Amino acid sequence: MSEFDLIARIRDRAATRADVILGIGDDAALLRVPPDKLLVVATDTLNVDVHFPADTAPADVGWKALAVNLSDIAAMGAQPAWCTLSLSLPHADDAWVDGFLDGFLALASQRDVVLVGGDTTRGPLSICVTVHGLVDPDSVLRRDAACVDDDVWVTGTLGDAAAALVQLRAGGAADAALRMRLDRPTPRIEIARELVGIAHACIDLSDGLLADLGHVCTASSVRGVVELGALPASPMLAARFNAEARQGLQACGGDDYELCFTAAPAQRDAIARLEREYEVAITQVGRIVAGSGVSCVDAHGQPWHAPRSGYVHFAD
Amino acid sequence: MSEFDLIARIRDRAATRADVILGIGDDAALLRVPPDKLLVVATDTLNVDVHFPADTAPADVGWKALAVNLSDIAAMGAQPAWCTLSLSLPHADDAWVDGFLDGFLALASQRDVVLVGGDTTRGPLSICVTVHGLVDPDSVLRRDAACVDDDVWVTGTLGDAAAALVQLRAGGAADAALRMRLDRPTPRIEIARELVGIAHACIDLSDGLLADLGHVCTASSVRGVVELGALPASPMLAARFNAEARQGLQACGGDDYELCFTAAPAQRDAIARLEREYEVAITQVGRIVAGSGVSCVDAHGQPWHAPRSGYVHFAD
Repeated sequence: MSEFDLIARIRDRAATRADVILGIGDDAALLRVPPDKLLVVATDTLNVDVHFPADTAPADVGWKALAVNLSDIAAMGAQPAWCTLSLSLPHADDAWVDGFLDGFLALASQRDVVLVGGDTTRGPLSICVTVHGLVDPDSVLRRDAACVDDDVWVTGTLGDAAAALVQLRAGGAADAALRMRLDRPTPRIEIARELVGIAHACIDLSDGLLADLGHVCTASSVRGVVELGALPASPMLAARFNAEARQGLQACGGDDYELCFTAAPAQRDAIARLEREYEVAITQVGRIVAGSGVSCVDAHGQPWHAPRSGYVHFAD
Repeated sequence: MSEFDLIARIRDRAATRADVILGIGDDAALLRVPPDKLLVVATDTLNVDVHFPADTAPADVGWKALAVNLSDIAAMGAQPAWCTLSLSLPHADDAWVDGFLDGFLALASQRDVVLVGGDTTRGPLSICVTVHGLVDPDSVLRRDAACVDDDVWVTGTLGDAAAALVQLRAGGAADAALRMRLDRPTPRIEIARELVGIAHACIDLSDGLLADLGHVCTASSVRGVVELGALPASPMLAARFNAEARQGLQACGGDDYELCFTAAPAQRDAIARLEREYEVAITQVGRIVAGSGVSCVDAHGQPWHAPRSGYVHFAD
């Protein structure tokens, strides 16, 4: 199978939408952006053994490659529309590509995102996805808008994906519920769009809560204080890890792809309504104060020091 | 140096433009597309030892990673505007990144293209760039518009980059003039925009003339006939390779990043004017006839069979 066969295989399965003038098959895609919208662009690459274990099912790799990018678009309060896919493979493996597309296109279809271009090349397994979204100019969620006295919130539960990695690195299999969170993150697109008008600052959690909240605080020139005991845990995480290990994963583990946002205390009722409507936990985990950086306090109000500050590429 | 240090290093050197609402530093970039333009998107990845030799200077890798994408945007008749960069590095090497940015940003600045986002991750050396351009809806150059009786044209000279690879693979150094064509391709943005209204179909030459003209012919449901003797050669290519080797490189070698376009014979004078104005050779190399596929004839009018049909990833 040649590169052109692979591209034809991908093209045959790609969907379209009315705003795609020209999709896969020319030198570039042609897309129509509504005049009242801003274009939102995010790019993320997944490399084997860095962003996913080598034994990950191809469909899960496909899902995750798109999901992590949709999560970035979501964190801006935007609606995703189109994506490109650059796929590097050690050799042309049609079964692997078919499986990859199963996961990638299942999520794309679910979110009405159309694959409009990309390339396939030879190289170590690596997937680079660029997602394009649309947003009203006055409905953007940014990192730099956190205010002193805001509450800090997170969607869902934290630490499951990092817990699955710990289990895998220990040489065993990961619990299915944890592995699912590692392999199939859920981009919080709808909730993020509902947060427009409610949240001040917003970010998606890819590097770990403390690291990502740190980005918000730096951009907003404020300080974040996280209460370790408030961090939401899944039942499986709570069952498998003791409090110390669990809290490290919740505060510092990467790959959650949940939203972290700040909002004025007056928004607590509105946030509770969202939680009920979407049946997703939204948990207050801290607050914003004057200063800089992020600190974390334990159940006794004592400063808690992270074993490491999130998943930092190049740090290990 | 951590991933965040690397991102800060890149961010500090990135330029901006008035239509960039938010560049590097949030979950995604925010961009303003003029209401009368279509958005044009192209993505290409370069992997070490596949798309560039491992000894390539970092600045040349940076230049080429952007140039190959600008070439795709050019082939649509579009004006490039913004790009994202996803950089996978085996380890955080600040000197390498600085050199890479020297080349990447020199070309970006020259073409008024702004780096608006991306990511840096650990992994085998790989660079994925997505370029966004803008084009008038009625000024798009496409692959599927070649007409029977059109002339086939190419800009510049062919085969130099492939010749440099042949020299490198033979174990020696490549001639500087050939190596420059491999490492620093020139995207033909201005000429492509002048071709709107002159050319019917257009494509950029990345996989080799016969392969890429084949894409045009397939998309346009026509046949291309290329005259081997008409293919333009640089003085260095002509000096270093005999006719047989040279013609194989010109017809089938990849990495030229020249334009191949078709136009009605009535446009020959207009094309000659462009050639003089831009001081770039624009050479008629064949014609479009009824049928399908691409054939190549030698100086005696006999069918010439390519040693291989262009650079096809996964084929070797």
